Amino acid sequence: MEYYSSHINKLIEQLSHLPGIGAKSAQRLAFHIMNMPKDQVQQLTGAITDARTNVQYCKCCYTLTDKEMCPICSNPKRDHSTIMVVENTRDLAAYEKTGKFDGVYHVLHGAISPMLGIGPDDIKLKELIQRLQGDVKEVIIATNSSLEGETTAMYISKLIKPTGIKVSRIASGVPVGGDLEYIDEVTLLRALEGRVEL
Amino acid sequence: MEYYSSHINKLIEQLSHLPGIGAKSAQRLAFHIMNMPKDQVQQLTGAITDARTNVQYCKCCYTLTDKEMCPICSNPKRDHSTIMVVENTRDLAAYEKTGKFDGVYHVLHGAISPMLGIGPDDIKLKELIQRLQGDVKEVIIATNSSLEGETTAMYISKLIKPTGIKVSRIASGVPVGGDLEYIDEVTLLRALEGRVEL
Repeated sequence: MEYYSSHINKLIEQLSHLPGIGAKSAQRLAFHIMNMPKDQVQQLTGAITDARTNVQYCKCCYTLTDKEMCPICSNPKRDHSTIMVVENTRDLAAYEKTGKFDGVYHVLHGAISPMLGIGPDDIKLKELIQRLQGDVKEVIIATNSSLEGETTAMYISKLIKPTGIKVSRIASGVPVGGDLEYIDEVTLLRALEGRVEL
Repeated sequence: MEYYSSHINKLIEQLSHLPGIGAKSAQRLAFHIMNMPKDQVQQLTGAITDARTNVQYCKCCYTLTDKEMCPICSNPKRDHSTIMVVENTRDLAAYEKTGKFDGVYHVLHGAISPMLGIGPDDIKLKELIQRLQGDVKEVIIATNSSLEGETTAMYISKLIKPTGIKVSRIASGVPVGGDLEYIDEVTLLRALEGRVEL
């Protein structure tokens, strides 16, 4: 693409490495950046560098945070005996937004996937098991409802059950407000299996 | 969103200012960046800064380039008497990819839009008129086929016609390979009006 400057080509290439950004979006973004005021560009690059440099894993739950211990783990008002296991910090955030869970979390940073060659040692599972030596009453497994998420949930539950600690799995079924017509068969069967008496 | 680190929040906010990137994509991108190796992050921010710092307008056609004059304007083999007027550098690139246009370009960096308050003085139109004092035989208007693009085309043609220079507009009609069934009525009518005898 010699009709673009080499700097623009390099930027387009870098941007197209990002997830969900194809060749066209990368072009659009690159030209948007070219037309941004220089101080805004500095703010953007600064934010990227700052975040990458200063953010670390919480030493307790392994979420991404800028302190040694995240605000949730260091909050004495949270119930530290109930640990919700999630795949990543975004899933943690999704549950935090509900405002109804007052326990703490454990962030695995992935899920077991034989297909992708991700085994139990590649996610923060050892670290979860270590936490169970403290005063833990329940582990709620909130991995995704995907093949990998379910595999991980099964694996964790088998690991924890012998310790006598209660292990639970978030319910799967029809989403609230969901129209049955548009919901896949597996979910419909799950919802049927998991039916509760009224 | 206190459950994220303030650095992550700042990064998400910065990313969500970019075009086509909503709150969810910004989150996904931010967490992707958090997990990128540091040297890759540096390459990304470096590419952004380099592009924004080193890229400038070609002094002749106003495309974005890293030299004073772009490779097309400084190529003596191109036909400098035929100028294709486009809205932006991406449109120039689209025509360059065809490999069939051997004239030069003029990049307006926008289109006239009374709705958005963009007038003739806000785009590189004065600069186009100045170029016509040279040896120019034809101006091909290749602004988009949108309301703004058409308005701009009309405006430019009225401006140039009195000089006696030939002004043309790229054809609009049914795209090649397009299925009539899925094409909007306005395009269908345009294609009908613009029919050519066989």
